[in-house]
Amino acid sequence: MSSQVRPQLEPAPTAPQATVPRATTAVQICEVGPRDGLQSVARTLATPLKLAWIDALYAAGLRQIEVTSFVPARLMPQLADAAEVVRHARTQPGLKVLALAPNLKGVQAAAAAGAHAVTVPLSATEAHSQANLRKPIAQAVAELRQIVAWRNAEAPSLHIDAGISVAFGCSIQGPVPQDDVMRLAHALAQAGADSVGVADTTGYANPAQVRRMYLRLFAEIGNADNPVRPGLCGGAHVHNTRGLGLANCLAAYDVGVRTFDSSLAGLGGCPHAPGASGNVVTEDLVFMFEAMGLATGIDVQALMAARAPLAEGLPGEPLYGMTPLAGVPKGYAPASAVAA
Amino acid sequence: MSSQVRPQLEPAPTAPQATVPRATTAVQICEVGPRDGLQSVARTLATPLKLAWIDALYAAGLRQIEVTSFVPARLMPQLADAAEVVRHARTQPGLKVLALAPNLKGVQAAAAAGAHAVTVPLSATEAHSQANLRKPIAQAVAELRQIVAWRNAEAPSLHIDAGISVAFGCSIQGPVPQDDVMRLAHALAQAGADSVGVADTTGYANPAQVRRMYLRLFAEIGNADNPVRPGLCGGAHVHNTRGLGLANCLAAYDVGVRTFDSSLAGLGGCPHAPGASGNVVTEDLVFMFEAMGLATGIDVQALMAARAPLAEGLPGEPLYGMTPLAGVPKGYAPASAVAA
Repeated sequence: MSSQVRPQLEPAPTAPQATVPRATTAVQICEVGPRDGLQSVARTLATPLKLAWIDALYAAGLRQIEVTSFVPARLMPQLADAAEVVRHARTQPGLKVLALAPNLKGVQAAAAAGAHAVTVPLSATEAHSQANLRKPIAQAVAELRQIVAWRNAEAPSLHIDAGISVAFGCSIQGPVPQDDVMRLAHALAQAGADSVGVADTTGYANPAQVRRMYLRLFAEIGNADNPVRPGLCGGAHVHNTRGLGLANCLAAYDVGVRTFDSSLAGLGGCPHAPGASGNVVTEDLVFMFEAMGLATGIDVQALMAARAPLAEGLPGEPLYGMTPLAGVPKGYAPASAVAA
Repeated sequence: MSSQVRPQLEPAPTAPQATVPRATTAVQICEVGPRDGLQSVARTLATPLKLAWIDALYAAGLRQIEVTSFVPARLMPQLADAAEVVRHARTQPGLKVLALAPNLKGVQAAAAAGAHAVTVPLSATEAHSQANLRKPIAQAVAELRQIVAWRNAEAPSLHIDAGISVAFGCSIQGPVPQDDVMRLAHALAQAGADSVGVADTTGYANPAQVRRMYLRLFAEIGNADNPVRPGLCGGAHVHNTRGLGLANCLAAYDVGVRTFDSSLAGLGGCPHAPGASGNVVTEDLVFMFEAMGLATGIDVQALMAARAPLAEGLPGEPLYGMTPLAGVPKGYAPASAVAA
C-alpha cells in the first residue's frame, strides 16, 4: 500500500480487543452447529458422533461452542442427549461450553450439566414469540427475570445471555422496526441479562441494517467485546439463507462486533425455506477473517476435517461452504499462523 | 435509527453517482454470465437459448451485459456464435453490449458485430499470462497499444477496457504484490485503455485486500464511476470461489466502487477448483444492494425467472444462489421499486 493511501474503514475507534480467552485472536468464532444446526435436522446424529464432532471442532481451535439445547426430548429428540453432551464438552480444557434453554427448567438442567453460559431465546415480534415460545414477549421477559433471580441464588457463575430472535425481520410479521428491538434489549438489560444478542434467525438482514443495528445497540447498551467500557451487546448471529452471511458478518465487524456465531458446513436450514442453508458457514467465515489478517485461532484445514462426523452420521445432508470445495489459495498465510 | 446514532460507514466522500445510463440506480450490475459463465461450461448452450437468456436478463432490468468472447471457435466452441449474439443483444434499446477479446483480431470482430465495449484481458503475473494468453505481460501491453491505435483510426466509439486477471492472487504464482498490479495498471493507462479493471479471477480476494486495492487504484488512476473527477479504474469483478463474493462486493462498495460484474446462478466455475462456483451470484448481489436501499434497476423476481433458459439448455449444471432457493423476505421493499 502506498504511503499516501490509507484505508478509510479500519475498525471503529471504539473497536474492542479481547475479553474472553483471546490473547492472540482478533475475533472470536462461536460454533453453534451442534445446537442450531442439529436442531434443524430431522434425523438424530448419534451421540458418539456428536462428541467426536465437538472434539474435532475443539481440535481445530474453537474455544466457544454452543453444544446443545435443553428442551423437552419429545419436542426435539435430536437433542435428547443434551446433558451428556455438555458433560463431555466440559472435559476440553479452556472450552467455553454454551447451551440454549427456553425456560427456567432448561436453564437449571444446563447448569446442572455444567454449561458455562445459557442463551435464553426471546422474539422481537409477538407473532414469532407465540409461534416459537407459545407466550407473549412480556411473559418471556418476566421469565428471564425469574431465571436471573434463580441464577443469582443458585448458580452465580452461570452466564445468562438473552437472545433476540427475528431481530432483523420476521417470517411471520415481515419487517421489524428497530425501535421494537431496542425496547426489548433495554427490557432484557433491566431484567438482569449478562448479555443481549440479536439474531437474524431467518436470513433477512442486509449489511446496512446490520451496521445500523449494532451501532445503535453499542450506543445504548454497550459492546460486550469492548474491554475499555464493556457493555451488554453480545456477538453477531446471522444466517446465510439468502447468501449474505459473510457480508453481514463483515458489516458487523466494521462497526465493532468481535464475536460471531457460525455453523460448520452451514448446517441447519430454515423450515420455511426448503433448500436454503442455515447459519453462516464456519469454514468460509474463518477463511475470510484469517485472510484479512484477523486471527481467529482456528485452523481452516482442521475445520474441514471436522466435517467427517457429520458426513458419516448424516449421510445425504447438504454440507454447505465454498472453501472446503475450493481449498485454500496457493500461498495462503492465515493470520493465526503468523500470530502463533 | 435514533437521532444520535449515525452509521460510520456511509459511502466515502468521493463516492460517485451515475456516469452511464443510471438516472435512478445507485449501483450498476454488469451481467457476465453469457461470457464468463458459458466459457467455463464444457457444454454449449444453444444459440436460441442464449438469446432468450440475454432477453430475460434485459427484461429483469440489466443494462450492461458481457454477452460473449471473440476467441477462435476451435479453442472455445461454446462461444462460436459470438457475432450473432452481439448482433441480437444490440437490438435491445439502452443495453450496453460488452464482449471480451484477447487480441486485435478479436477486437475487430467484436467491433464489426456492434459491441459497445471490449474487455482485453491481461494478467498480473507472468505465469498466468503465459498459461492464459501464451505471451509475456510486456507483449500483451504492446498489443493493447496496437488495439487502441486501431480503435482510434477505425472504431472511435468503441470502448477499450483492459482487464487485469489474477490481480488478487494467482493460482500458479500464489500471492500477487499490489505493486505489480499498480505497475501494470499504469502501463495500461499509458497504452491508452479507456478503463482498467482488476479481476479476482480465482476467488483469492478478501475484503481487506479489496479495500486496499480500490483505494489505491482510485488514488492513482481514478474511479471511472466518479462523475466529478472520472478516472480509469472500472468496476469490481470478483469470484465466489471461497464464498466471499458478496463480502468482497460490499467491501468494494464501501470504498467507492459502483459497478459490479456478476453471473446469473453463479454460472461458471474454476477449472482448478472442481465444484467451486464461479462469479458472484447476480441474484444474491442484486438482493443485497436492493435490501440495503441501493437501487440497481433490476427486479429480483424477474432475475430468478431468467434462470429458465439455463436450466433448460444446461440440464444438470449447478445453478448457485441462495436467494432463489429461499425467496425474498416477507415485506421485502426493494430500493428500485421505491425509486421507480
